[in-house]
Amino acid sequence: MFRTESEFVRWLRDRSPSKAGPLQVGIGDDAAVVEVSRGRQLVLTADMSLEGVHFTRRLHPPKSVGHRALARSLSDVAAMGGVPRFVLVSLALSQRTLSARTRVLWMEAFYDGLTSLAARFDVALAGGDTAVVRGRTFVDVTVAGEVEPGRALTRSGAQPGDQIFVSGRLGMSALGLRLLKSGGLRHREGIKPRGTDERGSAGAADPSHAAIQAHLYPEPRCSLGRYLSERRLATAAIDLSDGLSTDLTQLCEASGVGASLAADRIPVPEVPGYSSARLLDLALNGGEDYELLFTVPRRLATRIPSRLGHLSLHRIGEIRGSSDLILVRPNGKEVAVKPGGFDHFRRQ
Amino acid sequence: MFRTESEFVRWLRDRSPSKAGPLQVGIGDDAAVVEVSRGRQLVLTADMSLEGVHFTRRLHPPKSVGHRALARSLSDVAAMGGVPRFVLVSLALSQRTLSARTRVLWMEAFYDGLTSLAARFDVALAGGDTAVVRGRTFVDVTVAGEVEPGRALTRSGAQPGDQIFVSGRLGMSALGLRLLKSGGLRHREGIKPRGTDERGSAGAADPSHAAIQAHLYPEPRCSLGRYLSERRLATAAIDLSDGLSTDLTQLCEASGVGASLAADRIPVPEVPGYSSARLLDLALNGGEDYELLFTVPRRLATRIPSRLGHLSLHRIGEIRGSSDLILVRPNGKEVAVKPGGFDHFRRQ
Repeated sequence: MFRTESEFVRWLRDRSPSKAGPLQVGIGDDAAVVEVSRGRQLVLTADMSLEGVHFTRRLHPPKSVGHRALARSLSDVAAMGGVPRFVLVSLALSQRTLSARTRVLWMEAFYDGLTSLAARFDVALAGGDTAVVRGRTFVDVTVAGEVEPGRALTRSGAQPGDQIFVSGRLGMSALGLRLLKSGGLRHREGIKPRGTDERGSAGAADPSHAAIQAHLYPEPRCSLGRYLSERRLATAAIDLSDGLSTDLTQLCEASGVGASLAADRIPVPEVPGYSSARLLDLALNGGEDYELLFTVPRRLATRIPSRLGHLSLHRIGEIRGSSDLILVRPNGKEVAVKPGGFDHFRRQ
Repeated sequence: MFRTESEFVRWLRDRSPSKAGPLQVGIGDDAAVVEVSRGRQLVLTADMSLEGVHFTRRLHPPKSVGHRALARSLSDVAAMGGVPRFVLVSLALSQRTLSARTRVLWMEAFYDGLTSLAARFDVALAGGDTAVVRGRTFVDVTVAGEVEPGRALTRSGAQPGDQIFVSGRLGMSALGLRLLKSGGLRHREGIKPRGTDERGSAGAADPSHAAIQAHLYPEPRCSLGRYLSERRLATAAIDLSDGLSTDLTQLCEASGVGASLAADRIPVPEVPGYSSARLLDLALNGGEDYELLFTVPRRLATRIPSRLGHLSLHRIGEIRGSSDLILVRPNGKEVAVKPGGFDHFRRQ
């Protein structure tokens, strides 16, 4: 427990790795000093998590807010094929309705969720900033990772003929959010982050539970990103944060290409009581799955396994030379796909 | 001008250095990929700038908000003796009262202030995140810099007998803020960021103008930090962001020492109409000066020049073995100094 800024810094420092190893100067100084591996390039990404946009006080327990805030940035590093190493966390915590004591409990659970995920990926908490504010809670997480020179997976390398793959099941997070909103809240407390990289595996005991878990505790696909980067299998990659339709559009725009998707190949959530059209809509336009979308030259496509550990991989379409993005229905009919995911400039 | 997220990304990318050089993958991908110089350690720092805490819509033009948000982090890198290299900027812009068009103008001026300062320090904009939010505007800036192994200036190395130095004139920023609040606003529009590292020089034409400039466009002391680090002159250093009384307390706590300050040696603002007690209070407890406080072994103290370029340097006291922090008045009377600067956990 802590009451002042310096007490908080001490508390946080106790939760962080010692100065031994790559963290030469850790939390509590003007800045952190860290070791970068010899000859590696640095991967840098910053992602905001905003109350009312990315999480709400009612639906998201603070442990999930911390986990998700870090998962967003780890997922970006995964999509570059990098190894995440260090994280900086800036937290402006709302003072509204929270008493000073509740606020401290909130912070403890938030940092617990964040540092637990960080520890599983061997990422060191290197610093950040903290304040209590009158407005809504605001989180910004910066992750620094490493990648071998020339091995980063960018969005811009996709070529006509490349096969399009995704990991996991898409739309799970959006489905989990709907379930939470429509009363799944009573399940919330029993849901914990996974200890292993297995989300998206078929045959989960309870599909609703799996969807809520996918929403509250998404699993960044760092192993998959490394697998693709080390073997030079992917020509382009992006993480699915805004939804397949939006993120594939971004990849195609960056690469100057188009794409066709086979509707019956897109891995939708396996949950009873939803029409296949509804599930396809979730998979296309639901955001925050944090799965990877990547393109592979046709001749290398057979080298992509159907499963990497517990994570399923699915070939869902092909890159085309024209700039269109189309969905091919099982009856052969083609429909245009428009970005339907999240654009912070349009929503809100 | 831009209306959507992707238009904004393109606009911002056009303001950033090309991919040539250290920025291998820049704005617009999942993450940036940057080159770190061979054998250097990485300096990482993140700092928030919050509407209502660090800036207000009434007093601070957006160009100043962008400048100050980056200056906070550059100052941290300066206090570590590092060279800043890359910056990531997360901006959650309030939609309150601003029309969509005003918001775009605000963002343009904000990024103009930030990237102008970045360019002067040869810092590349490598990424970040942006959103429009219902609440107050929130900025988080992360800077990655470099330092030679073993040369970082920490807070924890001060020894009894070390001489305490500060750069510039302390309390200028707090004085500038007061002047702005009490009607100095009419001067605001004519005030521009300095093109050179000369703030704090004696004999500025108009002291009020200099104070407002110090507040709106503070100058990070990166050259001084490098000077101290390269010559191994300082045993400890911290930047003056929260006020001398608070920041010296933090340095002393980290080093396990105390200090005595000579009241008549503390460089206060040179401005008519203020009592010396009032000016001393500003210098001790006014924050956001972003000058450097550093300690130097007694035998090396003569090697600290009285001026580095246009920047004045002042010996203001001595580190002591006891944990007290005392101020020695010109009549020899000693008074205890308590941290009187900014603590985000207490204020607000």
